[in-house]
Amino acid sequence: MSTAHIGFLGLGSMGAPMARNLLDSGLAVTVYNRTRSVAEAFGSAGASASIAETPAGAVVEGGIAITMLANDAALEDVTLGPDGILQQLGKGGLHISMSTVSPETSKKLAALHAERGSLFLSAPVFGRPEAAAAKKLWICQSGSNAAKQRAKAILDILGQGIHDFGEDPGAANVVKLSGNFMILAAIETMAEAQALAEKNGIDRTMLANFFGQTIFSCPIYQNYGRTLAERAFEPAGFKLELGMKDVRLVRDVAEASMVPMPLADLLHARLLTSLAKKRGKQDWTAIELVTAEDAALR
Amino acid sequence: MSTAHIGFLGLGSMGAPMARNLLDSGLAVTVYNRTRSVAEAFGSAGASASIAETPAGAVVEGGIAITMLANDAALEDVTLGPDGILQQLGKGGLHISMSTVSPETSKKLAALHAERGSLFLSAPVFGRPEAAAAKKLWICQSGSNAAKQRAKAILDILGQGIHDFGEDPGAANVVKLSGNFMILAAIETMAEAQALAEKNGIDRTMLANFFGQTIFSCPIYQNYGRTLAERAFEPAGFKLELGMKDVRLVRDVAEASMVPMPLADLLHARLLTSLAKKRGKQDWTAIELVTAEDAALR
Amino acid sequence: MSTAHIGFLGLGSMGAPMARNLLDSGLAVTVYNRTRSVAEAFGSAGASASIAETPAGAVVEGGIAITMLANDAALEDVTLGPDGILQQLGKGGLHISMSTVSPETSKKLAALHAERGSLFLSAPVFGRPEAAAAKKLWICQSGSNAAKQRAKAILDILGQGIHDFGEDPGAANVVKLSGNFMILAAIETMAEAQALAEKNGIDRTMLANFFGQTIFSCPIYQNYGRTLAERAFEPAGFKLELGMKDVRLVRDVAEASMVPMPLADLLHARLLTSLAKKRGKQDWTAIELVTAEDAALR
Amino acid sequence: MSTAHIGFLGLGSMGAPMARNLLDSGLAVTVYNRTRSVAEAFGSAGASASIAETPAGAVVEGGIAITMLANDAALEDVTLGPDGILQQLGKGGLHISMSTVSPETSKKLAALHAERGSLFLSAPVFGRPEAAAAKKLWICQSGSNAAKQRAKAILDILGQGIHDFGEDPGAANVVKLSGNFMILAAIETMAEAQALAEKNGIDRTMLANFFGQTIFSCPIYQNYGRTLAERAFEPAGFKLELGMKDVRLVRDVAEASMVPMPLADLLHARLLTSLAKKRGKQDWTAIELVTAEDAALR
Repeated sequence: MSTAHIGFLGLGSMGAPMARNLLDSGLAVTVYNRTRSVAEAFGSAGASASIAETPAGAVVEGGIAITMLANDAALEDVTLGPDGILQQLGKGGLHISMSTVSPETSKKLAALHAERGSLFLSAPVFGRPEAAAAKKLWICQSGSNAAKQRAKAILDILGQGIHDFGEDPGAANVVKLSGNFMILAAIETMAEAQALAEKNGIDRTMLANFFGQTIFSCPIYQNYGRTLAERAFEPAGFKLELGMKDVRLVRDVAEASMVPMPLADLLHARLLTSLAKKRGKQDWTAIELVTAEDAALR
Repeated sequence: MSTAHIGFLGLGSMGAPMARNLLDSGLAVTVYNRTRSVAEAFGSAGASASIAETPAGAVVEGGIAITMLANDAALEDVTLGPDGILQQLGKGGLHISMSTVSPETSKKLAALHAERGSLFLSAPVFGRPEAAAAKKLWICQSGSNAAKQRAKAILDILGQGIHDFGEDPGAANVVKLSGNFMILAAIETMAEAQALAEKNGIDRTMLANFFGQTIFSCPIYQNYGRTLAERAFEPAGFKLELGMKDVRLVRDVAEASMVPMPLADLLHARLLTSLAKKRGKQDWTAIELVTAEDAALR
Repeated sequence: MSTAHIGFLGLGSMGAPMARNLLDSGLAVTVYNRTRSVAEAFGSAGASASIAETPAGAVVEGGIAITMLANDAALEDVTLGPDGILQQLGKGGLHISMSTVSPETSKKLAALHAERGSLFLSAPVFGRPEAAAAKKLWICQSGSNAAKQRAKAILDILGQGIHDFGEDPGAANVVKLSGNFMILAAIETMAEAQALAEKNGIDRTMLANFFGQTIFSCPIYQNYGRTLAERAFEPAGFKLELGMKDVRLVRDVAEASMVPMPLADLLHARLLTSLAKKRGKQDWTAIELVTAEDAALR
Repeated sequence: MSTAHIGFLGLGSMGAPMARNLLDSGLAVTVYNRTRSVAEAFGSAGASASIAETPAGAVVEGGIAITMLANDAALEDVTLGPDGILQQLGKGGLHISMSTVSPETSKKLAALHAERGSLFLSAPVFGRPEAAAAKKLWICQSGSNAAKQRAKAILDILGQGIHDFGEDPGAANVVKLSGNFMILAAIETMAEAQALAEKNGIDRTMLANFFGQTIFSCPIYQNYGRTLAERAFEPAGFKLELGMKDVRLVRDVAEASMVPMPLADLLHARLLTSLAKKRGKQDWTAIELVTAEDAALR
């Protein structure tokens, strides 16, 4: 594969294993992380990665930048800020944006890249850090065909399947946000069902196992069902405060496109109560505690 | 298998294929249906079934009665009414109650059976009529061990797995109601997600396929996801008005056991709007139309 | 006034002052209460009341019965049970039903009275016990004109205004239930607004006073606003568990007439959480605690 | 009264009658409106007002600026933009901000004014345009004492009462937002109650009158109750799209201060459905149509 040099920006719990997989595939990768010590720790664990001092320093002209950051503000900062990647990538460059951000941000960045002759691909992912490490991410993409063609070899390394949602750079973000909404809705659903069961003398784990083995035999219900049954909310697989960020984005898109989503409002209320009770660092399944407390189970 | 004679009461879309499977296994089955013509049609299609004029006429003393009826009232009527099965079954009899009813009704019937020396087993099922025909039902049971032992050979014929929830005769009903709540919650979840997608220019079927193939790769999301994407609400697989009956039971149990379930309330509101708009005979996935109308998609 | 003899059934916190006002107006009143000691205490405090042993014993043929009872079951019991008033009243009798009950019960009782030649008037009231004592109740009525004419002199004694809602005996009950729904909705509204204010450093009482003196200058907002601001939930003016009974009736009527009421569902959830937390004996404004706890204000 | 010169910015349906009242009181007022023709129409109808070309042009150094604008963006534009009032007012100036805006914006502006030696007072109002014309506005204020003292004479002209909420410049905005939330909650409450009544054969107007004359005898219930009963949604007294702006601010404050407000979420969903159905120019009571449609009354 004659891929150009890759700059990987954002070495959080998802970004780090993804960057490592690219390195392990023999690609030349320069990493950047806002907190430099994180990048150094990453580098010392893997021989071949170069470490950049600035976002721009991680990419070369006409090269590839991959961003995996916490939120829209971080993405804009790294892309548009002083020493951002937008100016550096220039003509022929490609920005693969894999963070969970709003479709508006993607559209804005795509337009700015287009003005400078570089490509932009929205490519958010589904999967926990373990899935990232195992190259088992599910990737949904949207953007120009040129961007997709150039990104394909890289995305094939990172995930177990690429699902395409057309040319609108914001589309893949809407899909990602819909998915996180659906996961949290499943969590709320199980929380209410388990509370009903518990109050009626039925073992929570037994209930979770039954549904996970029969009509809901898929990872979300199996894994989260067990976590909920055991109330194993720490350590967090996905922090509740990050879940709030995502539901906030869901509500923003819903309002902008005029789609009333009462279930999203319910999930937002659960998260907000949880944050008020200082559970932001727990796993987002901890919204269950609100249901349990309302039913006087806790 | 030396099972005693079986009386099968209720030949609706679920009961009919179940009764046929018992007949095809070589068991002696007498059927009863409130509307006699339904029983006759069933009989003429299969040689060996006897047809009873009354509930009591379908069972023999010390034999087995299986009920698969529309609601609590029908079950009470067939069991406790004049010519009901309770008096006829008598000592050593077994009543396998497979309808979706309230836990209270099960507890009441179990106690009445116990007074007369007969056994009672709660054994509601998950699965559509096709699954019933294919012996692929998921059965959850609760009740006395004696009842379970005697029912086992019969339940093994009808389903692909028996899941036990202890001795409380109401427990299996709570599990069944929880399951139907969870299914309808998944429907609402997908309806909101698809509305968001559609309003943002994303193909509904593409969205459903993506999630059905990845993080929600289980029958409920795959099958209902497709139905929702295509808005294929007729003919009904499970009528919306029956879904309302079930959610009403969920709310009754939730109130009795003091478990606030805001999501169940939302589902109830969706169903009630649908009934007000005369969609009771459509498939219960048709609650999606409320979401679509609220978003001015229809 | 040539009114016939009055039997007054139900000497709770509302019924007792109402019965006393009738006695004080010089009417002949026989009282009945299920717990006899309550009737005796009432009698010993006021000279002229006779005490009956049974509901039927409180009324005379062709006379007037007034019922002010806790719920539908109590009303049916006193009216239709053995020694009930229905048989005793007979031709020319009048039953004024002032309890908060379902419209269905009123329709049923009206029909049964009509069969026996007696009249039935639905006449539920708004007002706390203090208002009952001060003859300041607001009365809404519905039923036959004959019943209204005969009841008028009595209702004029009990309240400060009679509002007519036509001939359907259930109509006045729907109005009463609507009113209690509206009151509790105002309570929830103030609870959320005060929580928002408190979290933003604004004094709750100051907020309540402002609205009570300006755009919401009516008793409900003034009185409940103060109670909520001070969280003065004990002693109860109206018990939370009775509020649950009423909201349950609201939801039953809403379901029967196919009117989705999401706000009623929210109120029900607040009450159910409160009951789960054993606050049923507190004032129904105590639903505020759920809002406060969700916001980590308590 | 020796008040300094007044610049009045924003001549919408509220601002115009307020500015006129100041002129009629003999004060020197210069007006500014973004759409100049509106200012000219205002001027030609009242002799004494000067018209400014820019925001800064409406105020004099050390003078008073009153802003009554559509939203936060307009307020920031007029204050902080090029030719904004902030620079012009300078030392000893006073900015009375009467628009419905977020508390954050007030805090930010108050700080910027303080840096330049000018005063800032948050003074949003309750009341429709008719109330503004009749000097019957209810004013809630918060800010520094110096600002309050200097503003008093002016606010006394504009309203029928000033209610103070302390020194935090954002407090009065939170009160205003709470009030609009409470009004819309009352509208939703009446909409649900009237739907229940209508479906049960009770006249909507009769119901509204009953409650408006008894337990809810205050303007909000009386006026909106009638509007709702008659579904008189046009012409708009307060446009639904403006109501959405306010509820959005309510939700923003609620999220920032971690106060779950499920009723605010319900109101937001009602408004969003209404906007999706292109009812943004109708009166905000038109959210009732969603309830009516859900109940198949329309």
